[in-house]
Amino acid sequence: MNLPGHADDPLLSDAGFWMYRFIEELYPICRSITGEGTRETLRRIALHVPIDIHEVPTGTKAFDWTVPKEWNVRDAYVRNEAGERVIDFNKSNLHLLNYSIPFRGRVPVKILRNHLFSLPDQPDLIPYRTSYYKENWGFCLTQRQAEALQEPEYEVCIDTDIKDGSLAYGEYLIKGSMDQEILLSCHICHPSLCNDNLSGIALATFLARHLGVKKPRYSYRFLFIPGTIGSIVWLSKNEATVGKIRHGLVVACVGDSGNPTYKKSRRADAEIDRAVLHVFRMRGKEFSVRDFTPYGYDERQYCSPGFDLPVGSLTRTPHGEYPEYHTSADDLDLVKPEHLADSLSIYLDVIEILESNSTYVSLCPKCEPQLGKRGLYRPLGGLSDAGNMEMALLWVLNLSDGKHSLLDIGERSGLAFGPLRDAADILEGHGLLREIARGKSA
Amino acid sequence: MNLPGHADDPLLSDAGFWMYRFIEELYPICRSITGEGTRETLRRIALHVPIDIHEVPTGTKAFDWTVPKEWNVRDAYVRNEAGERVIDFNKSNLHLLNYSIPFRGRVPVKILRNHLFSLPDQPDLIPYRTSYYKENWGFCLTQRQAEALQEPEYEVCIDTDIKDGSLAYGEYLIKGSMDQEILLSCHICHPSLCNDNLSGIALATFLARHLGVKKPRYSYRFLFIPGTIGSIVWLSKNEATVGKIRHGLVVACVGDSGNPTYKKSRRADAEIDRAVLHVFRMRGKEFSVRDFTPYGYDERQYCSPGFDLPVGSLTRTPHGEYPEYHTSADDLDLVKPEHLADSLSIYLDVIEILESNSTYVSLCPKCEPQLGKRGLYRPLGGLSDAGNMEMALLWVLNLSDGKHSLLDIGERSGLAFGPLRDAADILEGHGLLREIARGKSA
Amino acid sequence: MNLPGHADDPLLSDAGFWMYRFIEELYPICRSITGEGTRETLRRIALHVPIDIHEVPTGTKAFDWTVPKEWNVRDAYVRNEAGERVIDFNKSNLHLLNYSIPFRGRVPVKILRNHLFSLPDQPDLIPYRTSYYKENWGFCLTQRQAEALQEPEYEVCIDTDIKDGSLAYGEYLIKGSMDQEILLSCHICHPSLCNDNLSGIALATFLARHLGVKKPRYSYRFLFIPGTIGSIVWLSKNEATVGKIRHGLVVACVGDSGNPTYKKSRRADAEIDRAVLHVFRMRGKEFSVRDFTPYGYDERQYCSPGFDLPVGSLTRTPHGEYPEYHTSADDLDLVKPEHLADSLSIYLDVIEILESNSTYVSLCPKCEPQLGKRGLYRPLGGLSDAGNMEMALLWVLNLSDGKHSLLDIGERSGLAFGPLRDAADILEGHGLLREIARGKSA
Repeated sequence: MNLPGHADDPLLSDAGFWMYRFIEELYPICRSITGEGTRETLRRIALHVPIDIHEVPTGTKAFDWTVPKEWNVRDAYVRNEAGERVIDFNKSNLHLLNYSIPFRGRVPVKILRNHLFSLPDQPDLIPYRTSYYKENWGFCLTQRQAEALQEPEYEVCIDTDIKDGSLAYGEYLIKGSMDQEILLSCHICHPSLCNDNLSGIALATFLARHLGVKKPRYSYRFLFIPGTIGSIVWLSKNEATVGKIRHGLVVACVGDSGNPTYKKSRRADAEIDRAVLHVFRMRGKEFSVRDFTPYGYDERQYCSPGFDLPVGSLTRTPHGEYPEYHTSADDLDLVKPEHLADSLSIYLDVIEILESNSTYVSLCPKCEPQLGKRGLYRPLGGLSDAGNMEMALLWVLNLSDGKHSLLDIGERSGLAFGPLRDAADILEGHGLLREIARGKSA
Repeated sequence: MNLPGHADDPLLSDAGFWMYRFIEELYPICRSITGEGTRETLRRIALHVPIDIHEVPTGTKAFDWTVPKEWNVRDAYVRNEAGERVIDFNKSNLHLLNYSIPFRGRVPVKILRNHLFSLPDQPDLIPYRTSYYKENWGFCLTQRQAEALQEPEYEVCIDTDIKDGSLAYGEYLIKGSMDQEILLSCHICHPSLCNDNLSGIALATFLARHLGVKKPRYSYRFLFIPGTIGSIVWLSKNEATVGKIRHGLVVACVGDSGNPTYKKSRRADAEIDRAVLHVFRMRGKEFSVRDFTPYGYDERQYCSPGFDLPVGSLTRTPHGEYPEYHTSADDLDLVKPEHLADSLSIYLDVIEILESNSTYVSLCPKCEPQLGKRGLYRPLGGLSDAGNMEMALLWVLNLSDGKHSLLDIGERSGLAFGPLRDAADILEGHGLLREIARGKSA
Repeated sequence: MNLPGHADDPLLSDAGFWMYRFIEELYPICRSITGEGTRETLRRIALHVPIDIHEVPTGTKAFDWTVPKEWNVRDAYVRNEAGERVIDFNKSNLHLLNYSIPFRGRVPVKILRNHLFSLPDQPDLIPYRTSYYKENWGFCLTQRQAEALQEPEYEVCIDTDIKDGSLAYGEYLIKGSMDQEILLSCHICHPSLCNDNLSGIALATFLARHLGVKKPRYSYRFLFIPGTIGSIVWLSKNEATVGKIRHGLVVACVGDSGNPTYKKSRRADAEIDRAVLHVFRMRGKEFSVRDFTPYGYDERQYCSPGFDLPVGSLTRTPHGEYPEYHTSADDLDLVKPEHLADSLSIYLDVIEILESNSTYVSLCPKCEPQLGKRGLYRPLGGLSDAGNMEMALLWVLNLSDGKHSLLDIGERSGLAFGPLRDAADILEGHGLLREIARGKSA
C-alpha cells in the first residue's frame, strides 16, 4: 500500500476547516454550465491543484449534444415605480433564472408573473431554476417577495449575454504506478449553493491535493465539469481511453449532516460498489445504500449503456432529499467542517481498499502453518478470545487460495480491511503468502 | 401491443355482472368429470365462445390413465318410513356422492351411516365428495340432517348410470400473429359450487370472448376440462404440440373476497411467474405468492416433470383455504361481481405484459440522448420531481442494451409496465430505440 | 438405506446413560496432546471399538509442524511454609499448566505469581491453560486460592517429563459397501473437562460401536486425536487418500443443555452442510447455524485451503460461548445423559440422510401416474387434507427428473427426509421410479 494510513497524516487533521474555507471563498461566484463564473472557479481550484483548464467551443458536437453558447451576466433586476430594486441579482445570484436570455422593458405584473418562480411551501427561500436549452427569461424569488409585487407594472432588466464562446472544465491526472485509473468527478455548474455542489468541489480539490503528493498505485483522474453537458463532452473527447477507468465516484453533497449514502454503479457489484459498502459496514455508523437509477448526477452519463463504467456516487443526503436542496437555504450554514471531514475520511478509506486490494495464494495451504514458531501467535493456548490480528492472519491464510481477494476476505470474515492488509503483509514477509493478482498496468 | 388498454374498453366495464350472471345460469347443473351436466355446461359456454367440444370415448388410454365410464344421474334420495325424502338430490346435487354407483333398497340406518358424509365442525353445510375411481355409493348431508336420521331403516334410491360413453371437454384456440401460445385452463367438473369453479369458467369464458375479437400477438388456447383426467387426456392428445405453450395459467377460485394469490410454475422464474408478480406489486394492494407444489389443480399435470410447462395458477383464496371450500356454502353469496371483475383485470394486466414484453437496444447508447430537443423533457431544469414518464424514458434508455426486456426494466426500476411500454414506443418513434427480440412465430 | 431407523433400535434407547458413564470413567485422567493419559484414554475406547492406536515419534515432520516431545506428569504442587499443598495436581489436573516443564525450588511469591493463572471474573473456577509450543511452567488455580497466597515464598514442585516419545491417536475404519468415507473426528487432548471434549469422545465411541455392526453404504472413519497437531499429523500421513472423504463432522461439545449448533464447512453448501440444516429444520426445535471461520477445532485443518474437505462441526453450545468453557466447571454436572442422547439422535439423522440420499427419474414423467389404482391414494376425493405420505409421493414424482436428489426435494418441499425416502422406495417398488445416481465406490 503506497498510501500511508490517513489517521497519522497531519495534513488531514484540519481538512474539514480547509474545505469549509474553500466553500466560503467560492460561494459568492455565479456559476453556470458555461461562463466567467465557472472559469473563475476553475482558476481558484488551480491555485491548489495543477488542473488543466479545457475550453470547448460553442457548437462542438458531443454525441447527441452540442456545446451551447456561453452565458454571462452583468446585472439583473426588477424595479418598482419608485425605482427600487425589488429583485436584485446582486443580492443573490439565485434570483436570476440560470441561462436567462437578455431582456429589458416595462412589463405588466400579470405577464411578469409568468416569468417568476417561487416556492409556496417554503415561502422564505429562493428556488434555483435553470433553462439551459430552452430560451426563456425569468427570476426566482421568495414566495413573500412574489406576493409583495402589487404594482401594475415593473421595470425588468436582464443584462446577460448568450453568445458563441466556450465551455470550460478542469481536469487533473495524477500518474500512479499503473495506467489504470480511478475517476473522481464533481459538477461545478451550480451558483451560490453550498452542499450541491461546492462541498463536492472542495472535497475533490482537497483529495486531489492529498493524492498528488503520494505515489499511488492507481492513476487518479479528477474532473471539475459542468453537470450533464460536461461529462458528455469529456466522454466524447476521451472515448478511446475510458477503458482505463477501473473505479469511479461522483462527488457531491458531502457537507450536510445526513448519513453517508452510496448510490451503486449500474453494474451493482463492481469493486467500487463492494469497497464502499465494506467501508460503510466497518464504520459501525448508520449509512444508506441505493441501487443505481438513471437519474441523478453525472453517473447517468458514465453509466449509460454504451459506457457502463463502474462509477457510483458517494454523498451524504442525496439530491432532492433535503428540504434546502436547490434553494437559497443550501448555504454556508447547511454544510459543516465536521461533515466534510467525515466524508473525506470515507473517500480515503475507500481509496485505501482500492489501492491495496489484492489476491494471494498461501504457500502453506495444507493445514495451518505454525504461527507460534514465527512469533505470530499468542504464546498461551486455551484463551477464548482469539484476538483480532490473529483472526486476520487465520482468515487470510484460509482464503488465500487464489480465488479470494482481500476485499472478498473482508466481506466473508466481517473484519476491517486494514488488519487484513496488514496480515497479508506480515504473512508475505514470512514467506507464507504470495501475491498473484494485483492490478496491472494496461 | 395489439391489445388496447382495457380501461377504455366499454365491454369490460360490466364484466363483473356478466360473469356473475353466467355463474347463476350454470349453478344448478350437476357436473362431474363426465356426463350430461358437463356437456350441457360446455354447450352454454359455446353460446358465447366458439369452443370445439371434444368427446373422448370411455376406455381411451391417456398416459397412465384410462377415460372412465360416463356417469349420469336421474334421481337420488333417501326416504323415511313416512315416504318423505329426507335426503334429496333435487334439492342439492351435492347430496349425492359424485360418481355414486346405482343402488336401491331398504337399508338399516347403521349400514346407511357408512355411506353418509357430513361435517361435524360445519354442521349446517353439505360437503362435496367424489369417488371417481373406486366404486361406492353414498350421500353427503349436513351434520344436522345426519343426526336426525333416527329411524331403524331407510329406503335408498340412487338412480344413476355408469356405462360406456365419453368424456367431454371444450377447447378454443384464438389464432394470434404468432403460433406461440398462452394456455388458459379451467376445470368444469364441479357441481353446484360457485367459486370452485364456476368463477373460473365464467372468467375464462369472458376472457376468451374478449380476446377473440382482438388481434393478439400470441395465440390463446382456452381449455374447459374436467379436473385431472381432463388435462391428462388433453396432454396425451396434444403431446406433439405442447411446446408451443410459452405461458399458461390455471383459472380457478377467482370470485371470492380474498386477496389475489399466485402459485408459481414449477420453474419458479418463468416469464409468467415474473409477469404476475410485477402486476401484483404494481397494484399496491395485498397479494400472496406461493411456490409450486405438486398438489392443487391441473397445474399438477402441466408441471409434471415430463412436460414442465410454464404454467402457474392465479386465484383469489386458494383451494382448501376458505371455510366454504367444497361445501354447499360455496354458493352464489360467496362470489361477487366486483371480485370477479378485479380478478379479470389482473388477468388482463398480465396478458398485457406478455403481449408487449420485448427487448430493445438503444441507438444512442453513449451518454443520454438530449430528450429536450425532441420535446421529451420538462422544459425547466432544477426541479426535484423527475416525473414518472421521464423516469420511464430514462430507464428504458439506460437498460436497453439488448440484455434487458421491458419486464426486466420494470422489475429493476419498480415502474409499472404500461409507462415503460409507452416509453419504448415513444423512443422507437424518435429513432432512439430498436426492438431486437420480440416473440417470434415458431 | 442400510441403517434401520434408529427409533426402533434397543441399543439406542439407553445411549445417553452409556455415554454419560463413559465420560465419568474418563474424567479423572490427565490428558494432553501426548503422554500416558491420552494413551490410557485410547485404550479405554479400544475396549468398546476396535480402534488402531498409532504412535507417531517425536520429531516427525507434518507439513509445517513437528511432533513435539512427549509430556508426562508424576506430581505437581505448591507447598506453604507449613508443608501443606496449597495447590495440588492430585486434586485437579487442571491445576498444572498443561505441558509445564519440570521445575523445583523455593520461589518468592512475587515471582510465583508470574506463573499463576486464575479468573478474576469467575473467582471459584480453575482455568484450563496450555503451553505446548513455548516452554513455561505454571499453575492454574481459583482466584480465591491465588488471593490466599500471602506467604513470602513457596515451595514449587513440578515433577514432569518432556522427552522424546510419541504422539498417540486412535483410528477406526468401518468398511461400508463403498470406499467413499464419512469422517468423524474428535479431539482427545483435554484433561478433566467434560463437555469439551469427553462428550465428543463418548458420542463418537458410541456412534462407532453402533455403525460397526451395521452394513452401511459409506465407509466411516473415526479419528480420536489430539487437537490441531493430531489432525495435522493424520492429514500428513493420509494425504494421498483424503479424497475419499465425502462428508465429515468434527464432534465436540455435545453434552451441554444448549441448542444444537452447526458450523458449516468452508464450502458452505456441501451435502453435509445441507443435510445437517435439513435435520435441524425438520426437528422443529431451536438451533443455530454459523458460517465457517478459520478458528475452532480440527475443522480448521480439514478446511485449510490445500484440503478444503466438506467437514463441518456439529456441537451444542460452541467453544468459548458457555461460561464453564475451559474451566473446572466443565464437569460432570455440565453434561447430561439427555443432551448426549439428543445430540446422538441428530448425528444419526444426518447419517441417515447421507446414507439414503439419491437421485431418481420418474418412469411416468408425463402427468401424474394414477396412484389410486396402485392403492397409493386416499380412496375418496374432495378432501382438503392431502396427507403427508401422499404429498411425499407427489413431490418425489414431480421432482424426480434426474436433477433433484431426495435432499433437494426435502429442501424444496419442506418435508422430512424419512417420508421422502419411504416414498421413493414405494414408488421404485411400483416401477414408477428408477435410481440413477447413488454414491458409487471410487
